[in-house]
This record gives sequence, C-alpha cells and structure tokens, in this order.
Amino acid sequence: MKLTASEIASLVGGEVSGDAKTLVTGIAPIEDAAPTDVTFLISPKLLKALSTTQAGIVLMKKGTPYQKTAVFVDNPQVAFAKILTLVAKEKESKESGIHKTAVIAPDAKIGTGVSVGAHSVIESGAEIGDHTKISAQCYIGARSKIGKGSLVYPQVVIREECLIGERVIIHSGTTIGADGFGYVTEGGIHHKIPQVGNVIIEDDVEIGANTTVDRATLGSTVVGKGTKVDNLVQIAHNVKIGQGCLLVAQSGVAGSTVLGKYVTLAGHVAVNGHIRLGDRVIVAATSGVPNSVAEGEVVFGTPCRPIAQERRIQAIISRLPKIYEEFKKIKKILKIDQETQ
Amino acid sequence: MKLTASEIASLVGGEVSGDAKTLVTGIAPIEDAAPTDVTFLISPKLLKALSTTQAGIVLMKKGTPYQKTAVFVDNPQVAFAKILTLVAKEKESKESGIHKTAVIAPDAKIGTGVSVGAHSVIESGAEIGDHTKISAQCYIGARSKIGKGSLVYPQVVIREECLIGERVIIHSGTTIGADGFGYVTEGGIHHKIPQVGNVIIEDDVEIGANTTVDRATLGSTVVGKGTKVDNLVQIAHNVKIGQGCLLVAQSGVAGSTVLGKYVTLAGHVAVNGHIRLGDRVIVAATSGVPNSVAEGEVVFGTPCRPIAQERRIQAIISRLPKIYEEFKKIKKILKIDQETQ
Amino acid sequence: MKLTASEIASLVGGEVSGDAKTLVTGIAPIEDAAPTDVTFLISPKLLKALSTTQAGIVLMKKGTPYQKTAVFVDNPQVAFAKILTLVAKEKESKESGIHKTAVIAPDAKIGTGVSVGAHSVIESGAEIGDHTKISAQCYIGARSKIGKGSLVYPQVVIREECLIGERVIIHSGTTIGADGFGYVTEGGIHHKIPQVGNVIIEDDVEIGANTTVDRATLGSTVVGKGTKVDNLVQIAHNVKIGQGCLLVAQSGVAGSTVLGKYVTLAGHVAVNGHIRLGDRVIVAATSGVPNSVAEGEVVFGTPCRPIAQERRIQAIISRLPKIYEEFKKIKKILKIDQETQ
Repeated sequence: MKLTASEIASLVGGEVSGDAKTLVTGIAPIEDAAPTDVTFLISPKLLKALSTTQAGIVLMKKGTPYQKTAVFVDNPQVAFAKILTLVAKEKESKESGIHKTAVIAPDAKIGTGVSVGAHSVIESGAEIGDHTKISAQCYIGARSKIGKGSLVYPQVVIREECLIGERVIIHSGTTIGADGFGYVTEGGIHHKIPQVGNVIIEDDVEIGANTTVDRATLGSTVVGKGTKVDNLVQIAHNVKIGQGCLLVAQSGVAGSTVLGKYVTLAGHVAVNGHIRLGDRVIVAATSGVPNSVAEGEVVFGTPCRPIAQERRIQAIISRLPKIYEEFKKIKKILKIDQETQ
Repeated sequence: MKLTASEIASLVGGEVSGDAKTLVTGIAPIEDAAPTDVTFLISPKLLKALSTTQAGIVLMKKGTPYQKTAVFVDNPQVAFAKILTLVAKEKESKESGIHKTAVIAPDAKIGTGVSVGAHSVIESGAEIGDHTKISAQCYIGARSKIGKGSLVYPQVVIREECLIGERVIIHSGTTIGADGFGYVTEGGIHHKIPQVGNVIIEDDVEIGANTTVDRATLGSTVVGKGTKVDNLVQIAHNVKIGQGCLLVAQSGVAGSTVLGKYVTLAGHVAVNGHIRLGDRVIVAATSGVPNSVAEGEVVFGTPCRPIAQERRIQAIISRLPKIYEEFKKIKKILKIDQETQ
Repeated sequence: MKLTASEIASLVGGEVSGDAKTLVTGIAPIEDAAPTDVTFLISPKLLKALSTTQAGIVLMKKGTPYQKTAVFVDNPQVAFAKILTLVAKEKESKESGIHKTAVIAPDAKIGTGVSVGAHSVIESGAEIGDHTKISAQCYIGARSKIGKGSLVYPQVVIREECLIGERVIIHSGTTIGADGFGYVTEGGIHHKIPQVGNVIIEDDVEIGANTTVDRATLGSTVVGKGTKVDNLVQIAHNVKIGQGCLLVAQSGVAGSTVLGKYVTLAGHVAVNGHIRLGDRVIVAATSGVPNSVAEGEVVFGTPCRPIAQERRIQAIISRLPKIYEEFKKIKKILKIDQETQ
C-alpha cells in the first residue's frame, strides 16, 4: 500500500484537508499510528486520541475539528472498510490451481479459475463454481454444490448434497451438513432418525469458525441470503434463517425454528425449537428465547422479555435485599408471621 | 426408492387404506410432497396440511380421518424413521477399502471390511474393528481402539489410547481425548497437570459435530452405552456419563461430574464440576446446575431449581414492576422510609 | 514407569514412611489403585478411600495418619503433577522429523529438531521454532511464526501472519486467526469489514480443543503470557487478554474487550465487547458480564453483580413464592387493589 491523501480521498469519495501529497504506506489504529500510516476516527470515544495521534492522515467525519492532514467523509466506517479491502487484497494469496495432493473425484465438476488447496478432498458428483477457492484440507461431500466466487477456508467440512451459494465465505473448523439430533425412544433405546435432508446456504452468507449447521431430517436447513454467522454457533436441523440476519458467537437455534429477515442474536443466545422470531427481532446477548417473538421486538433475559420490562425488573432485583428489609419491617408493623425469615 | 403403498405397509407393519398399488419414488414433508412422494403426519399441528397435501401416500396414526391413500400405523414416528433408514441406505457411499493417501502405521490393526478415507492418519498400535468406516482426513491416535461397525465422519480427531465401542457414530470436527484443563498454580504460574488418562466411548453412542470430550487426568472420562451427544458440547476430564443420556447442543459438563442413566441436558446447559445428577434427571434448556440433583428431578433456571418452583418464581418476577408499585403504596400508607426509590 | 518409594520421595522432595523399597509400576486414582500402583490423596473428601485403598504407595500431605507405605510432602498436588509428567514423558511419541506427506512451502523456515506430521500444510514464509512439534493435518498460514518448544496437536488451523510464542500448546480442532465478525450495514446489506490484523499468542499459553481466537480488524488480538484457555472458548477480534488468566470452557469474550492479569472466567461465561475486566477479577460460571468490572472483584449472575449481593438476591428469589403470599395478605389488610393477582 502506497497512497497519498488525495488518492485516498478519491478512493473513498472524501475531501482532503491539509497536505494532499502526504504519503502513507500503512494503516493502524489511532493510538498506534505512525506518520507513515493512515488511521480512522470512527468512535467519538477516540476524540481524545485524535489530539495526540502521530498518523500521517486521519479519515474522519465531516465537521470534526482537526488541524493536520485529514480526509473528511460522510461515513468514516464505510471509508475504513474500503481502505481495509485494499489492504486485504494486497495480502491475498495469488496462488491458484489444483494442488497435486488434492483428491478430486473424476466426476466432480470444477469451474474455471477454481483453486483447491493441499490435501483437500472433493467427492463424487460435487460441483465447484467458477473462481471459488477451496483452501487446504477441506472436505466437500458427494453431490454438494458451491456457487461462483465463494471462499472456503482450511479444514471446513461440507457433507454430501448441500447447496452453497455464490460469494459465500466459510471459515475454518466449520461443519456444514452433519446429521441433525433426532431419535425415537422406545424401550430405553434411542433409535436414530436418519437425516436425509440437506443444508442450503444462500448467496453472500458468511459463516464463522467452528460453527455447525446441521442437515434437515427431510427437506432443508436454510441460511438466508446475506446472513452473517459468527464462531461456535449451532444451527440445528430444519431451521430456516431469513436474509440479512446476524448470529453472534456461541448462539444456538434449536430444531425447526424459523427466523425472519434481519433478526439479530447478539451473542451467547439460546433459541428454542419449533418457534418463530419475526423480522427484525433483536435478542440481547446471553438471552434464552423459549417462545415465538413478534416482528420488530427487542427482547432480553432468560426467559426473555421485552427489553424495557426486563431492565425495569433487573433494576428492582438489584434492590431486592433492601426491599426485603423494608418488607420485614412492614410485616412486623402488621404483625404478619415472621417464619419466612 | 420405489415403493407401493402395500410395500410400505409391510415394511412398517401398517395397513393400507385406499389404493394399495399407489407408487412413490420420494419422501417429502407434508407441505412440499408431490403425488410421487410418501409423507408423514407426525404432529397434530400438521392436521391442517393433511387436507391440502399432494402426497401420493400419507403415513399416519390409526384412526386419523383421511379419504386418499394412506398407511395407518400405531407409531408414525417409528414408521417415519424406518422409511428414512431405507432412503439413507440408498444414499450411502458404496466406496470402501483403504484410500492410497491414508497414512497407516505398519503395526496398526485394521479389521476386515474397514474403509479409511483419503488423507486419514492412523497411528502406531491403533486398532480399527471390522466394517468400521473411518472417513477422509481423520486422525486416530496411537493405541486407540475403535470397535466394529462404527462410523467416523471426516475430520474427527481421536487422540491416543482412547477406547471407542461398537456401532458408535462420531461427527465431523469433534475432538476426543484432548487434555483436560488442569493446572497447579504456584507463584503466579499455572503449572500443567499432565493428563495421562483416556476416554471411553461405549457402544451405540452418537456424538455430534465440533464437540469435545477431554481425556481424564488419570483413569477415564466415560460416555455410557447408547448416550447421544449433540454438537458443540463440552465433556470435561473424568466426567462419567451413564447410559441412554441425551446432551443437547452447547451443553457443558465440568470435570469429575457424574451423570446417571437417562439424564437429559436440554440444550445450552452448564453443569458444575464434582457433582452428581441422578438417573432420569432432566435439566431444562439454558439452565445452570451448581449442585447435585436427585434422581428423577426436573430442574430449570440459573442457578437451577425444581421446575415448578422456578416457573412460579418467573411468573412473580414478570409482575415485579407492578408489585413494586403496590409495595411503594404500602410504604406510603405505613410511612416507611422512601429512600430505596 | 518403575519406581520405589524412596525414588518417588527424592523425585518429589518428600519423606518415605513404611517400606522405602516398595516398587510400583503404575499410577491410579485412590479407589482403583492396585498394590503395584502409586496413588495420591489430594482432596480431604478422599480420606475415607485411604482406609481401603490397595495402592502400594500413597503420596499425601505431611501429618496425615496412615500405617502403610506413604510418601509425605508439603503439597500433594504439585507432587502428583510431577509424577504425571514422568508418565506423560514415557507415553510421548518419539517420532520426529518431517513426514513425507507434509506440504511445506520452499521458503518456510523450519528450525532444528522440528517435527511436522502427516498431511500438514505450512505456507509460504511461515517460521517454526526449534524443537516445536506440528502434529498431523495442521495448517500453518503464510508468514505465521511459532516459537521454540511449542506443541500443536492434530487438525489445528493457524491462519496467516499470526505470532505464536514459545512453549505454547494448542489442542486439536482450534482455529487461530479466523476473521473477526465485522460489518458495515448500509441499505440492508452487511458489507464485510476486512480483518487485516493478526493474533498474538504469548509464551507458555495453552489453548484447548475447538476454540476460536479471531484476528484483529487492525492491530492484534492478544492472549497474554501463561494464560490457559479451555475448550470451545470464543475470543473475538481485538480482545486483549493479560497474563496468567484462566478461561474455562464455553466462555466467550466479545470484540475489543480487555482482560487484566489473572482474570478467571469460570466456565460458560459471556463477556460483552468494549469493556475492561481488571486484574484478578473472577467471573463465576454461567455469568454474563455487560459492563466493566474493577480489579479484584468477584462477580456472578446475568447481568452479573458482586457475588455476595447476587447470592443474597438469589436467596430472596428462592423464597419469592412465599414472600408473595405474605404480600397478598398485606394488600388485603391494607385494602390495596388486588388486580395483580
């Protein structure tokens, strides 16, 4: 990376203030940035750091007062993402092609510009779309299909007959299409219900590391277009997740539950099976969701309640020891039996 | 799959109503089924779908009113599992044998009819029982033994000296026999306590994807016969799990805890170390279990309580804001100090 | 292993009582030990077992009354760890060298005495320090560096440009350096913020199985010297964890949060993003931490509170059904509206 302030401004659609010829060769957080770095003022919390930063160029919101070289934009976060994309592209591996140790079934269909890393296995009848990258040590099961321009990081398992869309990113350690957890119990024996469905991951989905998306018993488990799933998330069999959802780390969704569009599970959230979360529902972190939640609601707690109610309740609970002392006084005044003490 | 209604009836021990010669070639959920599909009415919630289904044959409980071709059975879920088993068998990979890229120690003992997938590694002294399938990219550590008829999915790690029973299924991404989390802290340094025990997985156990079962410090961590473990579950060192338990996704059991027979952890449950859960204990989803629980109890909450008590408590907690308003009225009437407001 | 009581005593710095020539060839828990085993009395709970143990030698705290052959020490747990280390060393694989199926970039730097297991992949520019063991089926990304004397178990992924210290242990299934979960949402589209930072794992860290440590957006995610991380833990982008911390299984730390030194997350704990936990903070198991916690505090609950307060609150909550009955009596006496019933 080697950019002047004016080049950065044209890249992100901003305006230079100060020396437009200032040259930077790196990118760094505001506290660590050197004169050869561009940095970003995204959060108002960092305003104090702005006065002492050594950065050569600071990207920030229009109207922020600053005397040294800056690029002013409407949305610094979007500008930040654009510069990062540039850096990421430079770091990207230029390798491509099929590694000689990859084991690819003769009848698998491999598109043009596909790369398959060392020790990966692609089973019979699988299809890999053009310009998709399968990294090292991945497993693509029989008859599974991956669309164009997708990126599968090392050590991902995609079991048989799953359908992965275009521009999908799947991180290392993730398992797509393992059997759902289904048994019929008779006479103390849990008989396995074979899971003969599959998983459908729609276009533009990103799935984090060490996450699990189970195949459906029958039909499909679906992760909708543009949804982003973090690390260590569990998506059980026959779950349907709408488009544009955000499932933050260590959340889990039990079997057959339906999430609408733009639902957020904000981390370490547990959602019961066979329920429905309407569009734009937000579940605060650490919550447990036993029942369906209507469109647009924001819920919190275990069991979860509308967030304003839960906050009011938690405020009262925090004062319970004091309230209980007063309650005992009241009982004394009214001569109510003291035995609960 | 290609079955007539009468063939299905004999397969599941049911009775045909309607045209016994109706032929189906697929299986589908009741809402999606075509005239060439068999479907299943398992839940009374789906009764409405029954009136509009296009399915060629519906499997359902004896006594359900229906005019078109049906197969009536006592237990539609068991019948469903039987048909699914048939479908699953058809889809099963017919490949077998040892893939040429597998790395198998010369002194490993490989039974008859074993298959070992591409890029798998089997270390010195390991034993694989007859007709067991080790899929691609698995690691079987030194001196570990796997019984007959087991199935290990791609990218499973079984560390050294572990004992896996017969007809065990282990899903992708799971790690059996990693070191337990044990340290002695002296002078601010956490010294590792080497974990020289192993893991014993008894017969007919199934373990989901990306789950971890740690080896014992000394002795064995045990998962009992017929127990089923879901995805992303943590089973710590020296835990003993009895037979027929169900551990649903993202549950964790801390070190040295003992679970009796037929215990259920219903998902996202955390169980403390060094305690005992008696036979048939059910821990409701999202609960935390700090202390031992007696045989047959059903518990809920964090910290968990008997479920009826916890539900009563949660009902009161939901009304706390209103109750607190009344409480303030009472304080006013009795002229109790208002400072807690 | 083949040791006499006097050899054990000199190894652990203890004193023999009884027959110093007693020979043992194994190690076992106190209940299971045979006359050819050494065992350990660590917990006073096991005192009863001491009277019936068959062990040839018992290691225990000075002053414990016992008639048969014993080795008395100040700290039996430390002595136990020393003997276990001996056993572990005997079991250790003596194999070394680079397996012929490993795929190592020509420009990777491999130290002396390094072993690289079957089917491992080491990418361009990576560096592996002297006497470090990379087990089978690992992935070491481009330009990542691992220090001397480290041990990476099978099927670990370390993505590009990460820095791993000396004497670090990483268990199977763990992913270091996957992308952090960062998006800018505009017009209903979640645009990926490329994650161009890295992960730094300092010396003497141990990381459990199937854990995820995400790379920073910019800069580094850091796990401090001597910190121990258990299985299935999530450490998000830009988190900084101080030295000597303990993160027990299934805990998660959200983005940009800072943990001081010697912080304990006691299992199934969720820590919010952008907060700070001071030195020596202890978060009890199953807690959720929404806000920063001051140095030395012990917290519990979701949302967490100082542990003494939370315990008092939980004691009152347990009695809520009874308290509520009394409350209704009070309302009746004072003729307060009964509608909340």
